[in-house]
Amino acid sequence: MKRGEMLYEGKAKKIYCTDDPHVVWVSYKDDATAFNGGKKGSIAGKGELNNRISAHFFEHLGSYGVAHHFVKLLSPTEQLARKVTILPIEVVVRNRAAGSLAKRLGLENGVLFPQPVVEFYYKNDDLGDPLINEDHIRLLQLAEPEQVAKIREEALNINELLLSRMDACEIILVDFKLEFGVDESGKLMLADEISPDTCRFWDRETGKPLDKDRFRRDLGDVEAAYREIWTRLGGTAHV
Amino acid sequence: MKRGEMLYEGKAKKIYCTDDPHVVWVSYKDDATAFNGGKKGSIAGKGELNNRISAHFFEHLGSYGVAHHFVKLLSPTEQLARKVTILPIEVVVRNRAAGSLAKRLGLENGVLFPQPVVEFYYKNDDLGDPLINEDHIRLLQLAEPEQVAKIREEALNINELLLSRMDACEIILVDFKLEFGVDESGKLMLADEISPDTCRFWDRETGKPLDKDRFRRDLGDVEAAYREIWTRLGGTAHV
Repeated sequence: MKRGEMLYEGKAKKIYCTDDPHVVWVSYKDDATAFNGGKKGSIAGKGELNNRISAHFFEHLGSYGVAHHFVKLLSPTEQLARKVTILPIEVVVRNRAAGSLAKRLGLENGVLFPQPVVEFYYKNDDLGDPLINEDHIRLLQLAEPEQVAKIREEALNINELLLSRMDACEIILVDFKLEFGVDESGKLMLADEISPDTCRFWDRETGKPLDKDRFRRDLGDVEAAYREIWTRLGGTAHV
Repeated sequence: MKRGEMLYEGKAKKIYCTDDPHVVWVSYKDDATAFNGGKKGSIAGKGELNNRISAHFFEHLGSYGVAHHFVKLLSPTEQLARKVTILPIEVVVRNRAAGSLAKRLGLENGVLFPQPVVEFYYKNDDLGDPLINEDHIRLLQLAEPEQVAKIREEALNINELLLSRMDACEIILVDFKLEFGVDESGKLMLADEISPDTCRFWDRETGKPLDKDRFRRDLGDVEAAYREIWTRLGGTAHV
């Protein structure tokens, strides 16, 4: 497999084409952004850690039948993935109050919900990724109603699988963001990444955040937190 | 029926108890507010016009089987209504892009939607009435899922009835806000008001707003616009 021209550069990854038209080459970067690009920085080792952590989660979910885009690791910071068209919807699943939801609804940080909450956001930097409902998705033609129903069901299924996986590592899965894509045959599948950039992970004993909130909120030890997640997932300490 | 003590004073109405524990006395005020109380003023004659216009709409909807709280007019600015517990959800139905939705989703003002869009907002001044989805409603226990389904269905039904009613007056119904309440027996019904304070009405020929946007956006002729709505609904020019 050869790396071809760059198709897209996002905030945390570069995507290149390959000699297989249905496969892309994903290169994870150390760059970090928050608050819709309002805060920028770099986290040493993040590219390697997220590449490995995300590969681990996708393989884990795949072993339970979740359709996803991950193909294989290529190097510490690179992986191959199915080429998909990403639906412009950020799917957030929340088990506890934190971040924008706690503020939006006036809830105490950390409160456990009786049932998970699923939210859809319109993936649009210019508009600041606004919260949307299913009528807005239909209006903007971001996805078909059947896709939305399937995404919601799959997001809740992934939540159960990740809750259990993280519980085994003594980590509280507070919330996370997913993206879905459609391949050349129209098949819907989980895409993008699952990592400390896209999840809130709290140490079960201390409540300490082990995720991008350390960067957002200037809590320090950002790289160590990402590395801690990888270590607890069974990865070697030095990736 | 006697007017008793005041139960509640809102931005546009005062609610009093009566000698019937299941009936309240509603007094419409000329006070106007916008932007979550950030802008305050008074519109001469608004209390009278909204009292009559809202009574007209509730009677009209009732004649098509819509359950509502309106009982009867008492005076130019007063009416009797069933005493209900208002669900803390603002239900917005939109036929065209305008106001916060146009801004939120980057849509051109006035664009007609292929299907109406229903939105729920958490009625909470301290939080600025945030947009919410059905998972948030369940989380905050604002209403039962069956009530939410019924509210959505009834809101779309009301939209059809109001679209038709306003079309006969050569008025475009752009969007409107509804509130629902539950009476002492647990029956769900349309409550609050339907008026130029709670709807966007545009003159079909000129596109001129005939509603509270004239106050929000300092367009002038506010009272004349409200009066125009009442006149086109068949009311006398001088209420």
